[in-house]
Amino acid sequence: MLAYMNQEAFDATLTSGKATYYSRSRQSLWVKGESSGNVQQVKEIRIDCDSDTVLLKVEQIGGAACHTGHRSCFHKIIDNDSVRVTGEPLFDPEEVYK
Amino acid sequence: MLAYMNQEAFDATLTSGKATYYSRSRQSLWVKGESSGNVQQVKEIRIDCDSDTVLLKVEQIGGAACHTGHRSCFHKIIDNDSVRVTGEPLFDPEEVYK
Repeated sequence: MLAYMNQEAFDATLTSGKATYYSRSRQSLWVKGESSGNVQQVKEIRIDCDSDTVLLKVEQIGGAACHTGHRSCFHKIIDNDSVRVTGEPLFDPEEVYK
Repeated sequence: MLAYMNQEAFDATLTSGKATYYSRSRQSLWVKGESSGNVQQVKEIRIDCDSDTVLLKVEQIGGAACHTGHRSCFHKIIDNDSVRVTGEPLFDPEEVYK
């Protein structure tokens, strides 16, 4: 998954060990999995060459990072002119997000 | 590595099979590796759940994606309060970027 972090979200991630992002639409910190329980336990934090991108290696509680229930948000593959979905949802979003 | 694509860059990537980005600072298409020869041959294209992020799986010619010569741009690991570099450069940037 890809999400936005501001300084506060980055600091909270370091301090808590749980992946914390910043929702620009809601203008507030977003502890991933806070409502569903599917938090991301941070195992390693990397930054890129020019220090403007963060890569988190995490243990994904519940097995799925995506709000659709798929393991990864990147579950759509471009195959010639069409898009096919790979993998099955690990949970039912309607059950998790009530 | 993380880089920006506009529609034109995405279309060029699909057509050419070489990872093509858009440089917002130079306001022009950027075929990765065009000058160094270290292009990225695209093996798979994925998009995320809300279709605003592209993930490319590539064969990195020359072995290194980063302008520092490292395999990955994400070669800096946050270790408590310090940053340590992992891996060795595979090429000398001063030789490649003249």
